[in-house]
Amino acid sequence: MILNTPIDMHLHLREGKMLRDVIPYTINQFAAAVIMPNLVPPVDNRQRLESYKEEILANSENFTPLMNVFMREYTEDELLDLAEDIFAIKLYPAGITTNSEGGVKSIENIYPVLEIMQELGIPLSVHGETNGFVLDREREFAVVYEKLARDFPKLKIIMEHVGTADLLGLLEEYENLYATVTLHHLLLTLDDLAGGMLNPHFFCKPIIKTPADKLKIQEYVKKGHKKVMFGSDSAPHTIKNKLKGAAGVFSAPVILPALAEFFEGDIETFQKFISDNARENFNIEVPERKIELIEEEWTAPYIVGEVKPMWAGKKFRYKVL
Amino acid sequence: MILNTPIDMHLHLREGKMLRDVIPYTINQFAAAVIMPNLVPPVDNRQRLESYKEEILANSENFTPLMNVFMREYTEDELLDLAEDIFAIKLYPAGITTNSEGGVKSIENIYPVLEIMQELGIPLSVHGETNGFVLDREREFAVVYEKLARDFPKLKIIMEHVGTADLLGLLEEYENLYATVTLHHLLLTLDDLAGGMLNPHFFCKPIIKTPADKLKIQEYVKKGHKKVMFGSDSAPHTIKNKLKGAAGVFSAPVILPALAEFFEGDIETFQKFISDNARENFNIEVPERKIELIEEEWTAPYIVGEVKPMWAGKKFRYKVL
Repeated sequence: MILNTPIDMHLHLREGKMLRDVIPYTINQFAAAVIMPNLVPPVDNRQRLESYKEEILANSENFTPLMNVFMREYTEDELLDLAEDIFAIKLYPAGITTNSEGGVKSIENIYPVLEIMQELGIPLSVHGETNGFVLDREREFAVVYEKLARDFPKLKIIMEHVGTADLLGLLEEYENLYATVTLHHLLLTLDDLAGGMLNPHFFCKPIIKTPADKLKIQEYVKKGHKKVMFGSDSAPHTIKNKLKGAAGVFSAPVILPALAEFFEGDIETFQKFISDNARENFNIEVPERKIELIEEEWTAPYIVGEVKPMWAGKKFRYKVL
Repeated sequence: MILNTPIDMHLHLREGKMLRDVIPYTINQFAAAVIMPNLVPPVDNRQRLESYKEEILANSENFTPLMNVFMREYTEDELLDLAEDIFAIKLYPAGITTNSEGGVKSIENIYPVLEIMQELGIPLSVHGETNGFVLDREREFAVVYEKLARDFPKLKIIMEHVGTADLLGLLEEYENLYATVTLHHLLLTLDDLAGGMLNPHFFCKPIIKTPADKLKIQEYVKKGHKKVMFGSDSAPHTIKNKLKGAAGVFSAPVILPALAEFFEGDIETFQKFISDNARENFNIEVPERKIELIEEEWTAPYIVGEVKPMWAGKKFRYKVL
């Protein structure tokens, strides 16, 4: 099976040794990826953006990093300067997930920024959760998505890592809302995290939810919904930090083998989900690259640097060549 | 504040070193406790019952262990022999929680045992969860509680560690259903386990659930509902095993200080919840013992043997004398 130019629309690569450890697993499977900016300090200025992009390029080949910057109250000049070199600006409500302490406290504060983004055609990427009860956070955030979608009808807004079925309904109601779906929200539920022994390696924000949520997400992905795109949210943490409770699933190594099983030979829909929808929705132009999967038993790595991957040691029916 | 003869209606003491490490924290606060039998091998015969009770007595003073045995297909002779020396028989659906692999696979198999228990007046203690989705397991088990309550109208059945509000409604519908409530289901929700960093020390079966469930449980406890009794389900695991995902909250050290804050001076209701309801519902006769709490800052222990207690290091306004 050959995939054309797979793009991971939501990826955490970290920096330094961690980046060097994990990036080979993405490059092996993806032609491009949208790189999240929640480092310490965040990627939120030209200098940091360039040095981070250089670090990624220095550690990759035939791979296009689509850079995001961290939302703050940017000036118009800053945005004009950044526009050409970024894919989107990532909005984290303050304190919601890993390194989001410096996030946005009130949406109104960034309305001037959103206004300019809309004019310049810079998409908005959103971690959509409130500070409410962990299972309700995405549902409660829906009103914010709706307000943003109405107030900025020409701004393309990406609801990242959708884990709550209700959010998918918004895709039909608002032309300018899009969604990314992770491997873990597509294939897991809270049972995988806490149904047997507690498994910290499946703990992430937003939390994996109910069987009903999973089924609805699968339905949207299986019908090849045009506005639904793959974004892994692969987020490596050291085993030590995972055992301290850090949120994030390092899914990068197993993505295409797991998705190949999920799509069961429906390569056409797989291709849309993994690349075409994203490229068409956002006019992404990156060098084309073919990725081949063969039907051959393959075992997910047990460890990558200091990180335990999702489904470590699990056997898959497909292998990336 | 003086409590008369507090009884913990659901306690895991383990064996050997672990028992010796944890039992002082119960004896200090309780005159008696119902001791759970899910050891390896389980407490399910006279010999094991006697040796376990002896071990507990050898490590305690002024304390009455009310022994439970593990449900299996006991003969009438066995039950006649055990009846005088046990408080109840504990039913674990197979594979549901710690050391429950040898539990009951089909309720019908134990109908003859339940028949005899009903005749002999031996209560039935139940871990009420199905093998369904982790948040639905107690709700799904309600039909089993209802069937048991209808089929054995004179058998006293205890719904242990209720974490789902719906189960409480059954207390009104069926005269022979009772409930125990733990400290963690009374005071915590899934947010405490997985709302911020993942906290394995709040992971238990049944899992702590939603704010609505917690509020309903608090409502029943605060109104001093006669059929609602305190049962800690305090369940120590070594830190090592907790980090491997073992289910259980070691709440024993903080129970009375935490409940004293919860009841905010309503000693009458506190007394019912912690002792009187249980003694009246089950005609429990144990030597009376007064436990005094004073208003003085007290810090929960950081570590007990190899176990991290619930709320380790937290400051409380009440101290057990």
